[in-house]
Amino acid sequence: VIVYGRNPVREALRGRRSVEQVWATERTAGEPWLEGVTVAIAGADEIERLSESPEHQGICAEAAPYPYADADSLMEPEDALVLCLDEVQDPRNLGAVCRVAETAGCAGLVIPERRSAAVTAAACKASAGAVEHLRVARVRNLADWLASAKERESTWVYGAAAEASVSYERPDYSGRVVLVLGSEGRGLRPRVAETCDELVRLPNRGKVGSLNVSTAAAALVYGILHFRK
Amino acid sequence: VIVYGRNPVREALRGRRSVEQVWATERTAGEPWLEGVTVAIAGADEIERLSESPEHQGICAEAAPYPYADADSLMEPEDALVLCLDEVQDPRNLGAVCRVAETAGCAGLVIPERRSAAVTAAACKASAGAVEHLRVARVRNLADWLASAKERESTWVYGAAAEASVSYERPDYSGRVVLVLGSEGRGLRPRVAETCDELVRLPNRGKVGSLNVSTAAAALVYGILHFRK
Repeated sequence: VIVYGRNPVREALRGRRSVEQVWATERTAGEPWLEGVTVAIAGADEIERLSESPEHQGICAEAAPYPYADADSLMEPEDALVLCLDEVQDPRNLGAVCRVAETAGCAGLVIPERRSAAVTAAACKASAGAVEHLRVARVRNLADWLASAKERESTWVYGAAAEASVSYERPDYSGRVVLVLGSEGRGLRPRVAETCDELVRLPNRGKVGSLNVSTAAAALVYGILHFRK
Repeated sequence: VIVYGRNPVREALRGRRSVEQVWATERTAGEPWLEGVTVAIAGADEIERLSESPEHQGICAEAAPYPYADADSLMEPEDALVLCLDEVQDPRNLGAVCRVAETAGCAGLVIPERRSAAVTAAACKASAGAVEHLRVARVRNLADWLASAKERESTWVYGAAAEASVSYERPDYSGRVVLVLGSEGRGLRPRVAETCDELVRLPNRGKVGSLNVSTAAAALVYGILHFRK
């Protein structure tokens, strides 16, 4: 598969999947971070054709398919913090949330196989390459997976919901924590919300009324890191 | 000026600036939130031409120029929380930060006049219309404005910096708080950083090493709302 853009190619080169070939414009190929990397020189139009996007920044690479993780294995650490996205369909939102999760040290991210953005080149780009280091797993049915995850000792599943009665500042987030965020507009599906142990909300003091999913994830995840200390 | 997209047009209609005309495709014009609004029916290509963007969602409007606020007036509330962006040039990042600031109830946002994205149609779109309710001010020189803002009683200026030695969890954020974020990649300019009372950092546990400016803003602003209680 193709990945494009500076950060995505750089992180693919130092990540888990093999990179078969790198193409770059003459100008980008001369950048110091590519020292020691074999690069085929190509025109910007050729790189745009390979990338199928104008956001290639003069570089793209052919890499092995994205190595999805096993969802259950993400839950192994006793203090695992795992994010789930319920049918988030915009790959840029998926990528932006992956970047938050990777920077915050989350154990991984779980997405459903269907009606969800996958880790495509656009998601890689939006994650600034973070997907190469974060573990991302796909599950057939998110509500079923959450129910099985809860069977593990000391595991709590929190869902983010604007209409929740509990502030996100209330729980102590000890043990294993799974945080589920829904898609912008529709929120969590009812069965997913029902499977959560608790629904929590961020304070909302504005007129527009909601954050996008990546900024909500950032506020909640950094809050959880603070509260669980 | 033109604003485009559903949320931007809806919030412009209920915001501070006058809207002269609305154009929409036949399909979008029939949406219930436009009831009572005079809409000129136009083709998608005409709306794209007016919007100068493919992200118009079938609607755009001619509105008065964006009504920038006076920066000093943002600092009037005794507990004002004001965000500043130091030369953030991507209008989507500016818009995304405006959405965070509006949702979190910030008193406003300050940007420099030069080398900064302004509140353009692209920023309105990325803010989901939040710029119509948030107060955004432009100043000639950000470091100078920060220095003058600090002269006001009980005012503290914090800068976000990955290399800061102080965790963002340390201050109590009482009084008036100004939080300055830099552009992705370059961070705060030296004179801006020197003008801050304290530089603070978010925990970073990943390999990629940074959040984008809107997710960093979300983590910090919601943290400040919590810590200042």
